[in-house]
Amino acid sequence: MDVSIIGGSGYGGGELLRILLQHPEVRVKQVTSRRFAGHPVAHVHPNLRSLARLDFCRPDDLSPCDLLFVGLPNGESMRVMPGLMNLAPKIIDLGADFRLRSPELWKSWYGFEHAAPELMGRFVTGIPEILDDRIRGADLVAGPGCEAVAAILGLYPPVRRGLILPAPVIIDAKMGSSQSGSASSSASHHPERAGAVRTYRPAGHRHAAEIEQLLGGYIPNLRVDITATAVEMVRGALATIHVYLRDGAAEKEIWAAYRQDYAGRPFVRLVKQASGLYRMPEPKILQGTNFCEIGFALDPRCPRLVIVSAIDNLVKGTAGNAVQCMNLMCGFPETAGLGFPGLHPV
Amino acid sequence: MDVSIIGGSGYGGGELLRILLQHPEVRVKQVTSRRFAGHPVAHVHPNLRSLARLDFCRPDDLSPCDLLFVGLPNGESMRVMPGLMNLAPKIIDLGADFRLRSPELWKSWYGFEHAAPELMGRFVTGIPEILDDRIRGADLVAGPGCEAVAAILGLYPPVRRGLILPAPVIIDAKMGSSQSGSASSSASHHPERAGAVRTYRPAGHRHAAEIEQLLGGYIPNLRVDITATAVEMVRGALATIHVYLRDGAAEKEIWAAYRQDYAGRPFVRLVKQASGLYRMPEPKILQGTNFCEIGFALDPRCPRLVIVSAIDNLVKGTAGNAVQCMNLMCGFPETAGLGFPGLHPV
Amino acid sequence: MDVSIIGGSGYGGGELLRILLQHPEVRVKQVTSRRFAGHPVAHVHPNLRSLARLDFCRPDDLSPCDLLFVGLPNGESMRVMPGLMNLAPKIIDLGADFRLRSPELWKSWYGFEHAAPELMGRFVTGIPEILDDRIRGADLVAGPGCEAVAAILGLYPPVRRGLILPAPVIIDAKMGSSQSGSASSSASHHPERAGAVRTYRPAGHRHAAEIEQLLGGYIPNLRVDITATAVEMVRGALATIHVYLRDGAAEKEIWAAYRQDYAGRPFVRLVKQASGLYRMPEPKILQGTNFCEIGFALDPRCPRLVIVSAIDNLVKGTAGNAVQCMNLMCGFPETAGLGFPGLHPV
Amino acid sequence: MDVSIIGGSGYGGGELLRILLQHPEVRVKQVTSRRFAGHPVAHVHPNLRSLARLDFCRPDDLSPCDLLFVGLPNGESMRVMPGLMNLAPKIIDLGADFRLRSPELWKSWYGFEHAAPELMGRFVTGIPEILDDRIRGADLVAGPGCEAVAAILGLYPPVRRGLILPAPVIIDAKMGSSQSGSASSSASHHPERAGAVRTYRPAGHRHAAEIEQLLGGYIPNLRVDITATAVEMVRGALATIHVYLRDGAAEKEIWAAYRQDYAGRPFVRLVKQASGLYRMPEPKILQGTNFCEIGFALDPRCPRLVIVSAIDNLVKGTAGNAVQCMNLMCGFPETAGLGFPGLHPV
Repeated sequence: MDVSIIGGSGYGGGELLRILLQHPEVRVKQVTSRRFAGHPVAHVHPNLRSLARLDFCRPDDLSPCDLLFVGLPNGESMRVMPGLMNLAPKIIDLGADFRLRSPELWKSWYGFEHAAPELMGRFVTGIPEILDDRIRGADLVAGPGCEAVAAILGLYPPVRRGLILPAPVIIDAKMGSSQSGSASSSASHHPERAGAVRTYRPAGHRHAAEIEQLLGGYIPNLRVDITATAVEMVRGALATIHVYLRDGAAEKEIWAAYRQDYAGRPFVRLVKQASGLYRMPEPKILQGTNFCEIGFALDPRCPRLVIVSAIDNLVKGTAGNAVQCMNLMCGFPETAGLGFPGLHPV
Repeated sequence: MDVSIIGGSGYGGGELLRILLQHPEVRVKQVTSRRFAGHPVAHVHPNLRSLARLDFCRPDDLSPCDLLFVGLPNGESMRVMPGLMNLAPKIIDLGADFRLRSPELWKSWYGFEHAAPELMGRFVTGIPEILDDRIRGADLVAGPGCEAVAAILGLYPPVRRGLILPAPVIIDAKMGSSQSGSASSSASHHPERAGAVRTYRPAGHRHAAEIEQLLGGYIPNLRVDITATAVEMVRGALATIHVYLRDGAAEKEIWAAYRQDYAGRPFVRLVKQASGLYRMPEPKILQGTNFCEIGFALDPRCPRLVIVSAIDNLVKGTAGNAVQCMNLMCGFPETAGLGFPGLHPV
Repeated sequence: MDVSIIGGSGYGGGELLRILLQHPEVRVKQVTSRRFAGHPVAHVHPNLRSLARLDFCRPDDLSPCDLLFVGLPNGESMRVMPGLMNLAPKIIDLGADFRLRSPELWKSWYGFEHAAPELMGRFVTGIPEILDDRIRGADLVAGPGCEAVAAILGLYPPVRRGLILPAPVIIDAKMGSSQSGSASSSASHHPERAGAVRTYRPAGHRHAAEIEQLLGGYIPNLRVDITATAVEMVRGALATIHVYLRDGAAEKEIWAAYRQDYAGRPFVRLVKQASGLYRMPEPKILQGTNFCEIGFALDPRCPRLVIVSAIDNLVKGTAGNAVQCMNLMCGFPETAGLGFPGLHPV
Repeated sequence: MDVSIIGGSGYGGGELLRILLQHPEVRVKQVTSRRFAGHPVAHVHPNLRSLARLDFCRPDDLSPCDLLFVGLPNGESMRVMPGLMNLAPKIIDLGADFRLRSPELWKSWYGFEHAAPELMGRFVTGIPEILDDRIRGADLVAGPGCEAVAAILGLYPPVRRGLILPAPVIIDAKMGSSQSGSASSSASHHPERAGAVRTYRPAGHRHAAEIEQLLGGYIPNLRVDITATAVEMVRGALATIHVYLRDGAAEKEIWAAYRQDYAGRPFVRLVKQASGLYRMPEPKILQGTNFCEIGFALDPRCPRLVIVSAIDNLVKGTAGNAVQCMNLMCGFPETAGLGFPGLHPV
């Protein structure tokens, strides 16, 4: 099967390439980059030196393919999507443009009118652990934001059973530097960013909308608030989720919820060890993998539940999750191309 | 004035030495270390190579002095404190043993009986920004835990005015590696600790008791929950405090509360910039300083308040704060010895 | 084919497991660990959570297998090797005990008598890029030290052609923290090791003996001196090699030497770009891979050559290189199990 | 005394401000920045929040002062210097423009004609440990490059006694990220720069010219080659200097040379411990200080000497060293304003 990538010079595009170039079922046909058109992909992604003999092409040179990954800046994807739909029967969008399903919701969070409101409802949210049946039949899939992936997977089992109170759900997200993309800025300048513990979004984080949209059906008036802090790592996202339990919900019940919902899910790992160094989920050892690790703890004094969910923001948070969606959409084994287990130590 | 330090080979003791050796009003008389007795302090604290000509002595060799800093492991200080009180008219304890004022509270959080319950109520909590009058007259001061310092200073203005709801107060603390002390362990082994975002205390953190004890008088039934995560930095603590506002509390009112309560306080800085890289408090640039930076943000959608409070856990969180207490207790200028402004970049 | 690992709880053993558990031609039969016998391997190597259902066993419980990897501390392997040779027809030793071929050389560098001098000459040095023919026919292979791998591959083409002067060859090695193993110590304590640029072996590094032994045949009186500095990374080794050219050696000739000697070698990459961020070899993007990247520069003022060689010390420097040797010894494709291309950014 | 700073928004300017704002003998009159004119200095240097009530001004608004620090990009200082000399009777230049004393040498290393050749010979090289007498009487001082400071101080004692061979002197420099300045670039983008061990200047480093210029008088034909590698730290420079001893030079003799030459020098520390974690010089604990730590080791097999010299590139490598020069030029105590001892751990 031929796949192409629009916007392949960023970090998400690089990870897509790494995974797809070793995927047993696909051939990477074209990869676009306005800035690097004509240059070898390994010039931008040096880890692909031995893997890729591919050059970037211009977006205008894109020819039809079987499935197209779209990695464009917010606001750009919505403008070109109708045209792209003529190029490929299946599209996976990695950006924000088709994550929300209502034009009003879009405008309230992003501050401008959506340019393709008629398409918004046609994209399936790309969370294979929850929406696999819908993804299998889908032609259009929108990959969620990386904080949203971690948070939704962490919240889904207790939320859908009504084990927690609707408000407040507070997500304290710790994010690595690759999260802000491959373009340098004064904020990403190493002397300023190294060792930082920087509250870059104390409130009003847009990914809250995606989480409320997906989980709001289970708990009326579910309110999700995200505080995002940049910490010293390149890859990784850790969502510390603070919620309150409904009366009567016990640890056993919570365990059962997670075990039941994620039984057979190849990329979800429940991590809650009594000993060892890695007792709770940690992004450090997930670098390069498509795993989401989930753990939790109950407060001994009150019905507070702390859920901890860890991913690699560029893999399960972006490229790997998109390939997992592709695998479902195309009838490939769900884990095809996603076998890297991660490193330790790292 | 002659001061001595019991337990001077740890990180807190090293910082005490660094500050006291340049303090204009004191002379460091003795520093004890069982393990390093007879060795120069610079052997353990290499930054003191040019500053200190002092050797560690054994605890038994301690002679009387004017003020004694006590940095002993939990449970040890309470056993030797009556004896130490014969050595010095003023004592500042850096450990946990005299932070709580009730034996019952102690036992419920620390799991064993307090050995000197009669002394518990005699120690004044060492938070100069709030209890300066009591510290000025005190002979016995207990320095609070580093998370407690950051959290209490961040919470005090809105709490004492009743601007926030009593529950839940969730403190999501990001901590550097020096917080766990100078003894190596498998958890502190560099290949395992580097780049970690590790939830080492998801619930039940003991410093919550100190915060509730001090602030509980302002809001009945105040409940504080701490989730602590180790992140990649050596020094620093950032408390992200999630609270809910009472109806009607506006940003202006919150600003006024902080400004009023911390007017003239030399070590509290309110940080809430509209531009620049360091818009919110950040421990990175506070390394080595006695500052506590405090900022906040209101959620645009609801009456949620996110307070962010940053310190150097070894300075404002331990040694610097103790020297600030000493300055008050002894009538020195509050800032004496604490003038280091911090570095940038770092 | 059944393979077993003696000493599987260290970092090298963990990487062997990661690679072998996904190797298409082998089954991991047993893994020993005195300390963790009876525990799942994923308890020690959390990246193997989804991959391994294996428990560590005691060394005494080892049963025969087709090939045995030996990862024991220096001095221990030599004592048990005769016994191990009864358990498996092929053995790959990852430690230092069988790297040198002469008992006298051993004693002069390691300070004690070798316990199995009769076996020393029977081990083939495990550098597939240079000794592939001998490794193919070997039953006993000794994996070289990680600095030696990087240095030998960097030096081999110019040395064997006599392009450089015999002395001095100065190797300035920059090493990550995993190089010192998985046991914690005060030197590996995160607050001390983080951000360090620490000259831990200014002179007299033992790996020099391996390099001189292998390359000394090409240049009489070859002298190699290593200065080793620990820098802030977990994985990786960079050898900066300072040599002087014989008169007349030109850049073109040096290029040709590298290109010719490493043509068709799947794990050597020549890196010498005029632009881009990764113009010279860099261990950062090699984490988890079996690649050795080699580059060089000529001093514009004199016939000085700077060779730069980068590897992941745990993969091409240890476990991956050993698997590459196994592949040759057993007639498997040289790259089997070693396809991970590495991550970017990371 | 009134001092002003031209080019105060960079990292060197920020450190000058930090030091000068607490200097007992001077008042900071003006600080210029084209980009930030009108903004408070603390907006750019957040560590100065409590220290500085100063705004940046435009270079054109500069008025006369007693001493002027010039921190301008290479090539710019030489053009404005004649004008600046009318503003202040004493000038300390922190850039490269007046480090070399010959226009020909300048052109051969920097590739363009010097614009003020008549001034080149009038600047005294700002290395107080070697040229203090000349600095005391100087009006114009040129601060050396940070690698040059570390290397010259490390080499001076053995070189001036002729203890080492004239060639080769190889300096393998490990540099922190602040070395490349405060402007962001793709190379300084955190995901690319974090954890890097990047050979950014394998040969031909310009600071070699300064070292040869100063030390060449002691050893005819002295040749210095620098290879520079960026490592993961923000502040710091470590020069590993590989030299060969003349016959007969013994460890005792080398020790004596260092001890004698640096006796009474307040900012040079000889570090060569048999035990402890910090046995050799290390930039980690020098952050923020004006110290240069120097140590060495002899190769047990041959007359090779490894000298290790560590500084904070922004302090002893730039701003602190410049203030030390100012202290000498103005008759202040040499250590005035430079008392910060550094932190541990950090």
